[in-house]
Amino acid sequence: MDAYLGLAGHFEELAALDHIHGVLDWDRRVVMPAGAAEERARAQAAVARWRRARLADPRVAAWLAAVEPASLEPDQAANLREMKRLHRRAAAVSEEQTGALADAAARSESAWEACRPAGDWAAFRPYLEEVVARVQEQAAALAEAEESTPYGALLAGFQPGLTAERAEALLREVDSFLPDLVARARTAGGGEEAPAAGGPFPQAAQERLARKAAELLGYDFQHGRLDTAAHPFTGGAPGDVRITTRYEERDFAPGLLAAVHEAGHALYEQHLPAAWRRQPAGRARGMAVHEGQSLFMEKQVGLHPGFLGLVAGWLDEAFPGAEERPAWAGPALYRRLTRVEPGLIRVDADEGTYPLHIRLRHELEQALIGRELAVSDLPEAWEAGMQERLGVRPQGDHRNGVMQDPHWAAGLFGYFPCYTLGALIAAQLMEALRTDLPGLDEQLAEGEPGPLRNWLEQRVWLRGSLPEFEGLLREATGKPLGVEAFRTHLEGRYLREAL
Amino acid sequence: MDAYLGLAGHFEELAALDHIHGVLDWDRRVVMPAGAAEERARAQAAVARWRRARLADPRVAAWLAAVEPASLEPDQAANLREMKRLHRRAAAVSEEQTGALADAAARSESAWEACRPAGDWAAFRPYLEEVVARVQEQAAALAEAEESTPYGALLAGFQPGLTAERAEALLREVDSFLPDLVARARTAGGGEEAPAAGGPFPQAAQERLARKAAELLGYDFQHGRLDTAAHPFTGGAPGDVRITTRYEERDFAPGLLAAVHEAGHALYEQHLPAAWRRQPAGRARGMAVHEGQSLFMEKQVGLHPGFLGLVAGWLDEAFPGAEERPAWAGPALYRRLTRVEPGLIRVDADEGTYPLHIRLRHELEQALIGRELAVSDLPEAWEAGMQERLGVRPQGDHRNGVMQDPHWAAGLFGYFPCYTLGALIAAQLMEALRTDLPGLDEQLAEGEPGPLRNWLEQRVWLRGSLPEFEGLLREATGKPLGVEAFRTHLEGRYLREAL
Repeated sequence: MDAYLGLAGHFEELAALDHIHGVLDWDRRVVMPAGAAEERARAQAAVARWRRARLADPRVAAWLAAVEPASLEPDQAANLREMKRLHRRAAAVSEEQTGALADAAARSESAWEACRPAGDWAAFRPYLEEVVARVQEQAAALAEAEESTPYGALLAGFQPGLTAERAEALLREVDSFLPDLVARARTAGGGEEAPAAGGPFPQAAQERLARKAAELLGYDFQHGRLDTAAHPFTGGAPGDVRITTRYEERDFAPGLLAAVHEAGHALYEQHLPAAWRRQPAGRARGMAVHEGQSLFMEKQVGLHPGFLGLVAGWLDEAFPGAEERPAWAGPALYRRLTRVEPGLIRVDADEGTYPLHIRLRHELEQALIGRELAVSDLPEAWEAGMQERLGVRPQGDHRNGVMQDPHWAAGLFGYFPCYTLGALIAAQLMEALRTDLPGLDEQLAEGEPGPLRNWLEQRVWLRGSLPEFEGLLREATGKPLGVEAFRTHLEGRYLREAL
Repeated sequence: MDAYLGLAGHFEELAALDHIHGVLDWDRRVVMPAGAAEERARAQAAVARWRRARLADPRVAAWLAAVEPASLEPDQAANLREMKRLHRRAAAVSEEQTGALADAAARSESAWEACRPAGDWAAFRPYLEEVVARVQEQAAALAEAEESTPYGALLAGFQPGLTAERAEALLREVDSFLPDLVARARTAGGGEEAPAAGGPFPQAAQERLARKAAELLGYDFQHGRLDTAAHPFTGGAPGDVRITTRYEERDFAPGLLAAVHEAGHALYEQHLPAAWRRQPAGRARGMAVHEGQSLFMEKQVGLHPGFLGLVAGWLDEAFPGAEERPAWAGPALYRRLTRVEPGLIRVDADEGTYPLHIRLRHELEQALIGRELAVSDLPEAWEAGMQERLGVRPQGDHRNGVMQDPHWAAGLFGYFPCYTLGALIAAQLMEALRTDLPGLDEQLAEGEPGPLRNWLEQRVWLRGSLPEFEGLLREATGKPLGVEAFRTHLEGRYLREAL
């Protein structure tokens, strides 16, 4: 058999395992009864082991050695590059390590869900300790294969092609201007208070609003669903990309913006190249690029003044009773959603303070993986870091402190930098897009995101993993990934005197 | 390695595949978006192929040959017997056959869901033809391994230990008295009309009622869920047993009774022997026994006059406005739910006419598998059979005719006899139980099904697949499976003059 065809057939079967993983994971987070955690952890560990076994299969090594690169089309060569990467990483860890981490992560994420409402750190800690120990093991094994640090090897798992050094350099550049920009933004516009949301907002009406926004942006409900989850995420499988959000009765904005954020992830997944659907080259180009798509929809589109004007009309319809409510009359909605105000919760943070949250997690997770910080000392380090970077402390309220995110519980160490890099990517995409689409502001105000969507589809979504990370960005925006577009975006949006 | 331990470890991994199958199937029927059918069919076909590969693995044959029966405990010997059965059947069919059937069945069931509302037989037919062809292939291969007819081999897949001849003999015995009993029952009680249900009944209130009933019977929501589905079923996985029902606005009874029926299935699954959870001996003892548990809860408990008295009180609370509504005042509810009245729909049928529906399907599916009837001739054969057995015809209304059930679409040929055998089992269990629990009627009227549940748990549920089919029945009821208890039950319930 031709070696490339052997590989392609072998990897096609992997798509079924990824499909299964996606459905089991969505199910666990959205609908699974609490008592099922134990059996589900076993099943998910088995899927992880089977996935690793297929990738690490000695036949893959033999095919990879036998393939004639000169005989391949460029797209096939890119697919081969991705196969090699997946094989190398899978072969670096043992079946036992893979199963143990998947099992620990599934248990720990369920424990997080159960313990978070009461902020019960003592009950959650042993689960997290187990996950950290298993991740440390894997990171050490991956570091050898990737010729990087253990933390760098984890990071490259989420964003292939990104080194820890490159991530650090970009985040440090953000550090160089952000604290000052945040301080200035807090007093911009005369420090005027925006009107409160003015709830209660019934959940059913909020859900209709979230569906309307997702649909307008182009999310396809024939191949997806919108549900609620403790922590919003996008999941499912190709052809079945599911988004989630969560609603707060006192405010319509978090549920709506989370839906818009997740729709951004989902649009990427729904528009990956169909011809490559069951091959490695057909996947999204890493999680920094992914967060770039979600943050594009949430921050660049969702907070666009024109788009918010449209939303204000929807709000009038969705929550009748008081026409032109102060919370969304005139520029009030834009003003409220673009206020810079340090707070405890990352997912509620504005665009200015958000990277400060990420830096803290980045610092802490590097220390955890580097064995410089013990899980038992994490809450204290969290409090100190929040105080230093954001000037606020959870003061022992772990629910809104160290237990606010599910990432570490789920074993996702090395993921957090993707958020800030995603914000850089989103801003840089918008900058390039504005040049190509001069009518953009009007289109968004009129609820016509089609041209914008087509631009992203051609430049990013349909490219899948055919280009490498930084190459994709250069192709799409005409320049290497940098912080300038983000800085310009923040200055334009936050350092205005008034709208 | 000790051969038995090798087998036990190998089969434990099978539990993860069964878990995955259960979750994918539940998801497909309850929450999956329509556009995902194609990818899901591929994933489910892969799971079916992997499951067959694990069962048919040559190592299993080697272990089975090497095991020393004398060294096993009795329960281990029973487990070995089940392993042998599973291996024999899996080895009889090829990987391609397994994948092709799973794929065809998943597509066809999705097509059934899409085509059924409009009764679009023309659109559905090609899917069913594909499924029938794939089932015919498998049945032929299984018949050799099982030393039976092709249809008998399918039947034994659903109820191990049951032959087609034994099933035919029991169903024929039912035929010998049922038509006459139905005719007499239709004029019993002076043929008096029962009051109509008197809706509309809002779905949310019906759902609370269904949850209340399931909970009272002992269904554990910590390890399960209640949802709606086009065709009610019980699914999920061990530790995560999920029930479904469907609600009709004009009548509260179908939704409630379907929930009670599925709770009967689920109680069985939730009380299988925990020590054997991931081994073949820990599974339910076949689908006739399973339907025995669901029909026990639906017909013996759910339609028990005392239990219905309790339900009438719930109905007053659930649907306030008219106290003591005629539909459930005094004996009206019992009278309405135990009226014998031939109709088009199997799942709405009373206990008397239900086995007539089953006989028709039994006859038709034997003809389809025996290649004596083509799928294209099925609607005509259906009309004629309904006329002959029940005196009613769908007259081209396929939605309420040949397309009313999902079983054939899903490739489940040989399943239908399990329903009538289940009715026999339920009646025979109730007869035995009455001897042991003289206070049963009072307990049900007081909403205390605990002693009854404990009896079933000890006699049936906790036995798993440790005994064989007919042995389980003999142990539980003190006699071989027969039709007499069912006949006595029907006569007692339906040939009364008035309540």
